[in-house]
Parts: sequence; C-alpha cells; structure tokens
Amino acid sequence: MFDTPLTFKSGAVLPRYELMYETYGTLNADKSNAILICHALSGHHHVAGYYFDDAKNLGWWDNMVGPGKPIDTDKFFVIGLNNLGGCHGSTGPSSNDPLTGKQYGASFPVITVEDWVESQARLADRLGITQFAAVLGGSLGGMQAMQWALSYPERLRHVLAIATAPHLTAQNIAFNDVARSAILTDPDFHGGDFYQHGVVPTRGLRLARMLGHITYLSDDAMADKFGRELRTGKLNFSYDIEFQIESYLRYQGDKFAAYFDANTYLLMTKALDYFDPARELDGNLNRAFAAAKAKFLVVSFTTDWRFAPERSREIVHALLHNKRDVSYAEITSAHGHDSFLMQDAQYFAVMRNYLNGIAREFSV
Amino acid sequence: MFDTPLTFKSGAVLPRYELMYETYGTLNADKSNAILICHALSGHHHVAGYYFDDAKNLGWWDNMVGPGKPIDTDKFFVIGLNNLGGCHGSTGPSSNDPLTGKQYGASFPVITVEDWVESQARLADRLGITQFAAVLGGSLGGMQAMQWALSYPERLRHVLAIATAPHLTAQNIAFNDVARSAILTDPDFHGGDFYQHGVVPTRGLRLARMLGHITYLSDDAMADKFGRELRTGKLNFSYDIEFQIESYLRYQGDKFAAYFDANTYLLMTKALDYFDPARELDGNLNRAFAAAKAKFLVVSFTTDWRFAPERSREIVHALLHNKRDVSYAEITSAHGHDSFLMQDAQYFAVMRNYLNGIAREFSV
Repeated sequence: MFDTPLTFKSGAVLPRYELMYETYGTLNADKSNAILICHALSGHHHVAGYYFDDAKNLGWWDNMVGPGKPIDTDKFFVIGLNNLGGCHGSTGPSSNDPLTGKQYGASFPVITVEDWVESQARLADRLGITQFAAVLGGSLGGMQAMQWALSYPERLRHVLAIATAPHLTAQNIAFNDVARSAILTDPDFHGGDFYQHGVVPTRGLRLARMLGHITYLSDDAMADKFGRELRTGKLNFSYDIEFQIESYLRYQGDKFAAYFDANTYLLMTKALDYFDPARELDGNLNRAFAAAKAKFLVVSFTTDWRFAPERSREIVHALLHNKRDVSYAEITSAHGHDSFLMQDAQYFAVMRNYLNGIAREFSV
Repeated sequence: MFDTPLTFKSGAVLPRYELMYETYGTLNADKSNAILICHALSGHHHVAGYYFDDAKNLGWWDNMVGPGKPIDTDKFFVIGLNNLGGCHGSTGPSSNDPLTGKQYGASFPVITVEDWVESQARLADRLGITQFAAVLGGSLGGMQAMQWALSYPERLRHVLAIATAPHLTAQNIAFNDVARSAILTDPDFHGGDFYQHGVVPTRGLRLARMLGHITYLSDDAMADKFGRELRTGKLNFSYDIEFQIESYLRYQGDKFAAYFDANTYLLMTKALDYFDPARELDGNLNRAFAAAKAKFLVVSFTTDWRFAPERSREIVHALLHNKRDVSYAEITSAHGHDSFLMQDAQYFAVMRNYLNGIAREFSV
C-alpha cells in the first residue's frame, strides 16, 4: 500500500494505491543487480514461473526470464509488476475506491507512461533500489523503459526497448480508437460503471481484442498459419465461422473478454496514444533523448508492422545524435509484433549477450 | 424486374428481383461500345454526373467517367448498376420479400461474385448487349470484372481489374470478420431482422466503417494528413475525441451508419471473402485463368496494403502463363487502397490510353 498521494500528468490525484508485484532471484548486497520488467497492454506482474498451487499459470515471459534464461534470475533480481490502472491486483478501475466504497469505474483517472514510471520509482524506493541495472520491456513496456531514462536518468544503467516506438502513428491511434469505440459504445459499458450494473461489456472487449490480434501478427504469419483454410472444408454460406482465421480470432476475443477489465483496456490504449517524449519539444526526438544517460539496447522485428523497425531506428538515431551508447538489433522474424514474446534463436542470443554484459558490471 | 428465378452458388433461389442501373452515353448501332462498371463494397449505380434535382449527389466515380474523361461517355455506353443484395435500389435485404410482405432481412441469401456476374449478364441480355467492350472495377469491383472473363469469356473483350486481388488473404478475411462481428453482436441487429424492430445496428455499422477506413488509407497518408495533431491543441485526458484522426474516423463511421444497410455490408464482405477462382483447382490460379479470353489491364497502387501490388502481379503472372494479352501498371500513389477512386495524373493517363485503344476497335 502506497499512501502518499500520486498526482497524475492529467492533474488528477490518487490518494493511495496498491501495486502488485513479483520478484525473481536475489537482490545482491549493494542492490546493483535489479531489473524492472514493464508490461505491455495485457501483461501483469506474473512474468515467469508458475504458482505452487497452479502449475498451468505460467508467467507471460517465462521463455525469457528464469534461471539460466536470457534474463537470468541466477544473476539478476527481477521485478515484475502490474501497472497502476491494471486489473491483476494493482489499484485500477475495478478496485474499490476507499472514498466511495464502490469500484472506481469511470472515475479512475486517465494514466500516462510518465505516471507509471513515477509509481514504479516509488516501488523501487520501497525496495531500496536506487539504481536499476536495467529497465526493459516490449511494446508499451518499451515506452516505459525509455521514459525511465528520461524521468530518472540516474536511476538506471541500461534500457532494453523492444518492439517499440518513440510515439504512435496516426494509424496506430486509429486502431486504438476503433477498439475503444467498440467498448465505449457497448450498451453494457454504462459509461465505465458497468460493475454496479452486474454486467461486463463483453462484446466491445471481444472486438477490441480481435482487432488487436490482427495487428500483433504479420500478414505472412497469418497466411502461413491459416491461409484460406475452411473450418469444415466447405463453404457454408452463413455468418458462422467459415475460415480458420475467424475461428482463431473469435476464440482469442472470447478468451480475453472473459477475464480482462474493459476500463483497464481503455487506459492502456490511451497511455499508448499519449506517449510522445518529443511532444513538448516541437516533435524533436533528438532533444527529447538529450536527458537520457543510460545505455540502450533497441530491438525490432522485420515483420512487425505495428511498431516497424523504422520506428526503432528513430530511437537509435536520436540516441546516436546525443552520442549515447546504443546497440541495435533488427531480428528477422515472421511473427510480427508478437515476435517479442516468442522464442527465437537470434533474438534470444542478442538478449542473452547484452544481459551477460550487464551482469559483468556488478559482482554477484 | 427480372422474374426468372436466379439460383445462387449457395443453392438458394431468388424467384424475382429488381436491378437499379444508370447508363451514360449512347449505345452504338452494333452495340459494341458498352462498358459495365462493377462497384466495390459501398458503391452503387450512380457512377457519374448528378441528378437534375440534386446537384450535390455526384456519382462516386465522376472524376473518371463522363464526357472527355478517361472512361469517355462520348465514346462509350457506360452502365453502372447497384449489385443484387445492395441497398441503393436493387433487391436486397432491406427490400420487401413478395412472399412474406416483410423485408428479407436475415432470409436474403449469401451472395457471391459469381452470382453477381450472373445477374449482370441478365441485365446485359435485357439491354441487348451480347458482348461488352469492357467490364471493369476496383477492389471488389475488379473481382467481378475478372469473374466475367471466367464465367462468360465470349461476352467481353477487355477486363480492367484495378486495386484488386485473386483472393483475400487471411489478414483481409480477419479484418472483415471483425467488421462483421461488430454488426452481428450489436444488440440492435436482431439476427438481421432489425427492420421489424424499428431500429438499426448503428454501433456495429459505425465500427465496421471506422475499421474499413483504416485499411483503405496508407499509413503514410494518415501520417501526412493527420499525424498526431490534437483536435483542441492539448491533451484532454478523456475518451472524447483527442486526436484529429479520431475525429475523422468517427465522422466517417457516423456518416456511413446513417445510410448504409447492415445486412448489405455483411453480404459484401462475404462476397469478398469467398471470391477465389482457384479454390476448386487446388489453388492453381494459372488453371483458373485458362478460361479467360479477354485482354486485361491490371492496375495496382504502391501504398495499397489491403490489395498490395504483389496481389495484382499474381493475376498478371497467371494471365501471362496462359499467354493472354495483359498490360500492367503499378502506380506510385500515397493514398493506399483509396487511390483507385482518386484523381492521379499517371493513373488517369494509363486508364485513358487503354480505353482509347478499346475505342479504336469499334466505330462510334
């Protein structure tokens, strides 16, 4: 429980809040081996391993994080947290507002990447970590890692920014707005206060997730995996599932809508839209990154059309302009934006090598 | 009124139907100068000019079709029709079913590109046109033009297939399925029989159109036109319109939902999904195009990611394999899939030259 009020970029104030986090590995004596993993849209604190009472509940990045894995918990003390506004234990729209005794719903403030970094810095204070060995993440998580280098340049030595961008494009925002509109116009949304009505805007959340999935995969990956394969082998001339790709998308949509909070989804997409460290600097990313002191590893994936390699190169160029130490890897991968979550020899080798380099900077 | 029953590819039978069409120019004595223009998803019969009582109601392809324009109505007799299943005058789901006295709604059969060509052939019979100088269209219209060459190889001399593809990809189908799901799950859809309930599935139709618009435009065109411009110049930290791109998309969605029929939208997207002349030939497009006798002009646009140039080249290769006469133009254009509707010097020159060549084949 954090009970120092947190003032958001919007001006809204959250008097108190909880952050749900998990740690892996052991913090060394001088607290120099800590890594913060920031999650993307639908992620949470459960990054690696499984719970003793639920062997099926594997962490979302278990292939990357663990003993002997690229983010090696034999060397690093790794923190995963659920972001503020989330729906996996940290205070969010579905939490009870102590002032009203009811769920926050629509009254939970719109949150930004900067606000998350602020809340994460307070968690670091609580854990006695004055400087992270690295802050890292993919997609929206990469934006938080970059923001750390700008908000608290002295509090981290490395940023690993994976499959991310210095800001969303108009097309990215457009996709987010369609997803949000699906939720906002669902009659069961009730202006965000659906909790009190005992319903969930399942239809909207399902559409949002279906659309999201299209943008996470590459055109080629979809073609390879599903092509034009029919589920029953023949055309059925109805609006039921006809092609395998429809079956996949609807399944993903239904699964997501059954557990994710609609207000959290809205907050996450807004945080994506807003992130733009160059916004108040006339769009000049070089000036934005002048504040950064950390060393950077930037990773992109060739078929990621949501956050294309050219967007990562913008980050690299701005860092180089500021004479920062930056490594860049453009990974050949067929899996689109989702590549950052998938096991790939080249990608994992890049991560392992870079993290081994970080580990050599401190004594375990 | 056509009262010879039409059997659809699905096996469904439509006992009678009306087709709304417009013509431009004059049919010559030997009826050799007729051009059929097939429309895409949201098009209709009103291709060019305006009505005497409504100067604002300009045809959807007025920049391309008219006296002295690339499709020159001083030379050609041009037919535009509203496709069967449409909502602009031809028999469709919102028409009254004479058997029940109620609107067809959900009972209107799922229709395919082949079915449209059949209905269009009957219209040609009615007009006494045994052979078209050309059948042409963009996007879904291009699919109909190609199907003409396969269904009735003797009944047309040229196909102009613009911004189209030999079949949709898994990604294309996925976008269509999200759009359909938005409509199908709108509580006001009532399984397709919303007419009887006095409501319209506006929310679903609006989402479908918003999503469609993203895929019609290129990423670059959106960036150039809207970028990250804020509507009020500052962040407002709410779910109201924040960025200009959101304003544009929502406006387009609202406008479309106010006039277009939801069942027609579903039918059009299914026809897109189903079109696949190689489907029953083990996916072999070369074999599919063996039936074609027409000469082809195939046109694609560099930034069209919905129907990318490589998809047009598949058509070209299959035609060349069959030693057909084919011209191909890949137009450099910033406007994505929508390019086929927009004025562009290179594109219009290609169209004009090709059509002038056709005009030289007959005596006006």
